[in-house]
Amino acid sequence: MERDGEKSVQEIHAPSSICFGCGPSNRNGLKIRSFRGERGLEMEFTPSEEHQAFPGMINGGIIGTLLDCHGNWTAAIALMDKAGDSEPPCTVTASYSIRLRRPTPLGRTLSVTGEVVEIGENRASVMMSLLADGKVCATGEGLFVAVKEGHPAFHRWN
Amino acid sequence: MERDGEKSVQEIHAPSSICFGCGPSNRNGLKIRSFRGERGLEMEFTPSEEHQAFPGMINGGIIGTLLDCHGNWTAAIALMDKAGDSEPPCTVTASYSIRLRRPTPLGRTLSVTGEVVEIGENRASVMMSLLADGKVCATGEGLFVAVKEGHPAFHRWN
Repeated sequence: MERDGEKSVQEIHAPSSICFGCGPSNRNGLKIRSFRGERGLEMEFTPSEEHQAFPGMINGGIIGTLLDCHGNWTAAIALMDKAGDSEPPCTVTASYSIRLRRPTPLGRTLSVTGEVVEIGENRASVMMSLLADGKVCATGEGLFVAVKEGHPAFHRWN
Repeated sequence: MERDGEKSVQEIHAPSSICFGCGPSNRNGLKIRSFRGERGLEMEFTPSEEHQAFPGMINGGIIGTLLDCHGNWTAAIALMDKAGDSEPPCTVTASYSIRLRRPTPLGRTLSVTGEVVEIGENRASVMMSLLADGKVCATGEGLFVAVKEGHPAFHRWN
């Protein structure tokens, strides 16, 4: 997935977001970059040394952050497409779960996918997975909900 | 919970850990400090601006990281106590789930608890909760497993 010349969904729809996981404008954040794929969104991420749990292996909370933010964007883009809109709704995480299947190694580019498994008017359930060297290291599932005006997160993308 | 003069379980048992969430020796990590409480472990954490999801509210991945690492230590200390040992076993996260019940605000000291709900020979299930201003903002549950020699995480505490 070489898309250096292409803008991510975060860069297109939320360039000023300061989210720790996905905000292009958070200098110290993970700045994940998600792109449309065949069955949802895809992204790649190369962890830093500070993201380890113990030498050589990535922390489960960082893995959860990658999957949570990528899953949220998968839901937001799917809800946008369903509604026929050009901008995604403001979605927040209601819940997510992470299963760590094998240690996630440092020094590799991780591949993360997100695919909608159920979608409603204002919410979507998404399955996420994280692979290193072609092996599934972690999987997750999340429920993401579009919030309305008045919610503290409303207009978070802008 | 004012325990500035007291060492946390991380400082006692894993002073050289570089874990992103709980390692005392990770300069850029969250450096959570967990202490024994009445029903498990307790800790307090004050997020930084970089931990936000959108202005004023904390990112769900950071919340997951706090609960995952604190839950893991709750399990490790409980397994140590059960075995009558003086050092905890090397535990890793098998899975965790997070439910975000209301926005977690920036600018507050968050209180996090961890309580074992089921314990076996080499594994424990833990319930975690995160409160701000006395209100439950997030809850979670995790399964943490002690690993044996040969696992990449073995001896991670030292």
